[in-house]
Amino acid sequence: MLPHIFRYEISPHISVYLECNGILYSSQSSFQKIEVIESLDFGRMLVLDGVINLTERDEFVYHEMLAHIPLFSHPDPLKILIVGGGDGGTARETLKHEGINRIQQVEIDGEVIAVSKKYFPSLGFALDHPKVNVLLMDANQYVRETEEKFDIILIDSTDPVIEQSEGLFTVPFYRDCLNALAEQGILAAQVGDIFFESNLFLAVFNRLKAVFPIVRIYLAPIPSYTLVPYSFAFCSKTINPEEGLGLSRFPKDSQTRYYNPQIHKAAFALPEHLKREFED
Amino acid sequence: MLPHIFRYEISPHISVYLECNGILYSSQSSFQKIEVIESLDFGRMLVLDGVINLTERDEFVYHEMLAHIPLFSHPDPLKILIVGGGDGGTARETLKHEGINRIQQVEIDGEVIAVSKKYFPSLGFALDHPKVNVLLMDANQYVRETEEKFDIILIDSTDPVIEQSEGLFTVPFYRDCLNALAEQGILAAQVGDIFFESNLFLAVFNRLKAVFPIVRIYLAPIPSYTLVPYSFAFCSKTINPEEGLGLSRFPKDSQTRYYNPQIHKAAFALPEHLKREFED
Repeated sequence: MLPHIFRYEISPHISVYLECNGILYSSQSSFQKIEVIESLDFGRMLVLDGVINLTERDEFVYHEMLAHIPLFSHPDPLKILIVGGGDGGTARETLKHEGINRIQQVEIDGEVIAVSKKYFPSLGFALDHPKVNVLLMDANQYVRETEEKFDIILIDSTDPVIEQSEGLFTVPFYRDCLNALAEQGILAAQVGDIFFESNLFLAVFNRLKAVFPIVRIYLAPIPSYTLVPYSFAFCSKTINPEEGLGLSRFPKDSQTRYYNPQIHKAAFALPEHLKREFED
Repeated sequence: MLPHIFRYEISPHISVYLECNGILYSSQSSFQKIEVIESLDFGRMLVLDGVINLTERDEFVYHEMLAHIPLFSHPDPLKILIVGGGDGGTARETLKHEGINRIQQVEIDGEVIAVSKKYFPSLGFALDHPKVNVLLMDANQYVRETEEKFDIILIDSTDPVIEQSEGLFTVPFYRDCLNALAEQGILAAQVGDIFFESNLFLAVFNRLKAVFPIVRIYLAPIPSYTLVPYSFAFCSKTINPEEGLGLSRFPKDSQTRYYNPQIHKAAFALPEHLKREFED
């Protein structure tokens, strides 16, 4: 069963066709179809319900930008909650901040973790780190019930179109997250394609605005996701990300491949047409 | 003859398929095949030798970034040379700078101009402006022979893979351009896809470095071109683009849709892996 082409939709009228060598793994977990596909240009890809979740070639952009933008915006982050992120990439980036005491990860699908450890060891290894505690449960329930306060919450979910992630894009979930944040707390989340799925993006953006005092959009190109820079939301009670309150911690011999202090500030520069729409 | 699909290659192993309504125009000029195709998501597209040259939906990003980055980096640009740019989009953006006296445009293919005036009037109209002087000739010969000095040269060519553009990506051509620049002169050029065609990009970048004292790369997403931000080169004798020497001229009621002063600075922030490669 060698599929020579993996096809995915950017919009109902635009598709991308990737040449592939084969499917390395395919199964149906209790939550989703999980596939590992070897592509020629993007390398190994983790595909969930037919949607590319990560590729070896460009996962560093996604994981670095989801983690380091909030982490370097905070003066002294100690306790981190990762929602989803079963592949381990977000935990790997978070662990580069040596001051961190504890990473609580809440992933609903244990099979994603097992697959990542086997097929994407350079990501999956992070989940075995002693600072990382993985809980297999619904993150909605976790944030509703936890009494802990986190400095940073990173929402590393699949897209809102996929069933088990829908609850992670709602006002009640965002309220529970706000309650689980410390005073200087920051939440960051991937919020999708601002250009080809702008209705979905706007719906999520408006829900975040209804809950968090500060909501800012930042952008980074992730070529295996869509044709335009992918969008993330930075949400906080008090912190302005462009101040980069933690940037003095950025090491000279950085271990990043995409993120750096110039990118930190540049990612918040929105094109004029989006600026008019999103900055009041 | 309604082609329902327009296919283009991002790399030998990645193709994009666009749903289309039909071909509005198709001819072979003395230099290239010219087509106007109506696509569902990108609107009307100008296609030269099978390669998307511009689309109604995203041409503003390309033309604004090619023109305004150098124009707002210069304290007082008066005389502009546009190489290629037969569609008129670069002239349209340049004309937004009211201080400009004269735009000399050198386009090899008069049929591109005629097609643009008919099918893309919101671009083509600019070529009828009294400040714009259009010469139909090879730009190589023009810059070799001109005795004028320009404040800005904008190279709005097709890609180096296409025959008649090859001469616009050579060291002798760049030397002639340097000679045709005033003391504070700036040249900007589109230099392609830094990710999927990095060899081609590097070859052009190194030729520019061999000629110009200052060469900086800047990025902007043009979704109909490729999957990652498209790259432009900013070249000058003395001017550092990040100083934005002309930014005080940026109007409050800007007529731009992509460019703004924050984007001006952000466009030069390179991802860490590129920064290591291109900034010495």
